[in-house]
Amino acid sequence: MKNTNLQDYSHKRYNILTGEWVLVSPHRAKRPWQGQNEEISTNKRPSYDNSCYLCATNTRINGEVNPDYKDVFIFTNDFAALQKDSPKFNVNNGLLKAQSENGICKVICFSPDHSKSLADMEVSDIKKVVHAWQKEYASIGKIEGINYVQIFENKGAVMGCSNPHPHGQIWSQSSLPNEVDKKDQQQLAYYKEKNSRLLEDYLQQEQVAKERIIFENNHFLVLTPFWAIWPFEVMIAPKKAQKNITEMTETEALHFAEAISVITKAYDKLFNTSFPYSSGIHQAPTNGKENNHWHWHMSFYPPLLRSATVKKFMVGYEMFGSPQRDITAEIAANRLKDLI
Amino acid sequence: MKNTNLQDYSHKRYNILTGEWVLVSPHRAKRPWQGQNEEISTNKRPSYDNSCYLCATNTRINGEVNPDYKDVFIFTNDFAALQKDSPKFNVNNGLLKAQSENGICKVICFSPDHSKSLADMEVSDIKKVVHAWQKEYASIGKIEGINYVQIFENKGAVMGCSNPHPHGQIWSQSSLPNEVDKKDQQQLAYYKEKNSRLLEDYLQQEQVAKERIIFENNHFLVLTPFWAIWPFEVMIAPKKAQKNITEMTETEALHFAEAISVITKAYDKLFNTSFPYSSGIHQAPTNGKENNHWHWHMSFYPPLLRSATVKKFMVGYEMFGSPQRDITAEIAANRLKDLI
Ligand SMILES: O=P(O)(O)O[C@H]1O[C@H](CO)[C@@H](O)[C@H](O)[C@H]1O
Ligand SMILES: O=P(O)(O)O[C@H]1O[C@H](CO)[C@@H](O)[C@H](O)[C@H]1O
Repeated sequence: MKNTNLQDYSHKRYNILTGEWVLVSPHRAKRPWQGQNEEISTNKRPSYDNSCYLCATNTRINGEVNPDYKDVFIFTNDFAALQKDSPKFNVNNGLLKAQSENGICKVICFSPDHSKSLADMEVSDIKKVVHAWQKEYASIGKIEGINYVQIFENKGAVMGCSNPHPHGQIWSQSSLPNEVDKKDQQQLAYYKEKNSRLLEDYLQQEQVAKERIIFENNHFLVLTPFWAIWPFEVMIAPKKAQKNITEMTETEALHFAEAISVITKAYDKLFNTSFPYSSGIHQAPTNGKENNHWHWHMSFYPPLLRSATVKKFMVGYEMFGSPQRDITAEIAANRLKDLI
Repeated sequence: MKNTNLQDYSHKRYNILTGEWVLVSPHRAKRPWQGQNEEISTNKRPSYDNSCYLCATNTRINGEVNPDYKDVFIFTNDFAALQKDSPKFNVNNGLLKAQSENGICKVICFSPDHSKSLADMEVSDIKKVVHAWQKEYASIGKIEGINYVQIFENKGAVMGCSNPHPHGQIWSQSSLPNEVDKKDQQQLAYYKEKNSRLLEDYLQQEQVAKERIIFENNHFLVLTPFWAIWPFEVMIAPKKAQKNITEMTETEALHFAEAISVITKAYDKLFNTSFPYSSGIHQAPTNGKENNHWHWHMSFYPPLLRSATVKKFMVGYEMFGSPQRDITAEIAANRLKDLI
């Protein structure tokens, strides 16, 4: 039974994975917009751009030449935020605390075709990206001193993406970043208490409620989590808990690729634009622990709110208070579902 | 003695107030920029704009007419995210948890002069804004069911500000938002352990170190906190702990106004533009508790990184991992100090 209060009145919702809250103001969806509009580029891009440092056979800023790659191409970031072999140190000076952080940052080109995004790619080609993610997670995760591997994509200029060539990144490091640490703790506490997986139990509840499910296939659910922050935030998760993406079988990898394809295509239809977002996969740390409490999932955080040019700003109140949204998760899920 | 590792190698720094970390990559400051540039408006605005719903004597969307105000003008937000009298409810349905949230949202015009920002205002006029904040905190905080009052400003179109007329907002509500809750817990734990105030002790340490202090007067410090996230993030705090802004004397209020004036003017000089930011005051909840662990402070979170048009994007890694910065807090503090 739907709780209509949640569609009518200001309230906060609890994120079981982070332990934090989001403020929801459903009554506010009709306020007028007088703020900044984003520029959208409607230029159709060519399949090859000789000024793009990610296109096959082109030279990057550091002088390296990209191979004539045919599907996925991975290289170490030329301006990595994390360094592998920088000195280890600890600052513990009164209330100033710092620690060296070592890591590896890689760039992963999803396709040699400069004009495409995941939404335009064949499911079989997305599956090759999934395979590359699996291989990278496995091999980077084995490196001494690397305890976490963050796979993500920034898509669109509005998401700080400096090159439209379809690509993502993989940053790996010695400690767990804030967001991962929160999810690690919340999942662990639940696992210890109930001896079952938090996200798996949640997904079962969602399969009964049906209100927030956008798409499903045999192995995956695509849904708007109850506590979603971004207007059209979406999560893709395997129905049965897996700690990390290497546990997927060939069939599951194909179903995951299909889920990615379905949601990115729906996104592009929503405002009739190549939909910007940051996406990322949260999965078990590679810290040598059992990590049986982990259930990996991929999330999409898209900034657009009302049109291709009007985004949701996470500013003042959101930075100093809590994230805030107007349109509810249920309404967002319905709108996306209608586009599939 | 300066720790040069912190200026040379990737590391993380601990935020004593939130318990979270920021990833710092000082070696990365020289990477080239190929991404989105912001548009800047260089139009000088008129002192009165007849299409501005915040200018004196103009009519707002809901039909109300603004008075012919001479300094500060405050009204209840016409599209408030929080409602005062909406029904109270609790959702506790398996892993779905939600709670009604009641509150009041106000808009505070800093000046009738449409062309100004805090940076252009006289210290004596900023002091009137400080007084208005004090009055609002005191009176809203007394209302039954209001346990926290968040004062903030979004400045600039890039910060989601829909109207350039100088104004801020005050959102108040029944529960503590995420960021305030973290600071409440961290300050309380320290107070219980040491019987002194966390931020006061930190500020004393900073006064000795001097590396991150931008400006000071008798009662206030303006500094870049050790754990700053945004490239030119700044904190203004009273040297001696006060729980909330109502504890300021007349002289202290004047010194606070001066600190605001100094930093906003320096910001405008930095990239020769009306500098965008979100600012906010974190202070003791109005929940009827002692709150002796609180030390109020105002923070500025400005998005610009390298110029009036190139901002820092908090996207992929930052959303899924931790905030990340290139230029260190020490370098940022020095650059701002040189502009005073
Ligand atoms: O209330 P405004 O100025 O219309 O809106 C702005 O500030 C609010 C509070 O930080 C945000 O929720 C909005 O996303 C932003 O556009
Ligand atoms: O690495 P890029 O694509 O140049 O940079 C982009 O993604 C990074 C990781 O999310 C961010 O730190 C940068 O602010 C953003 O512009």
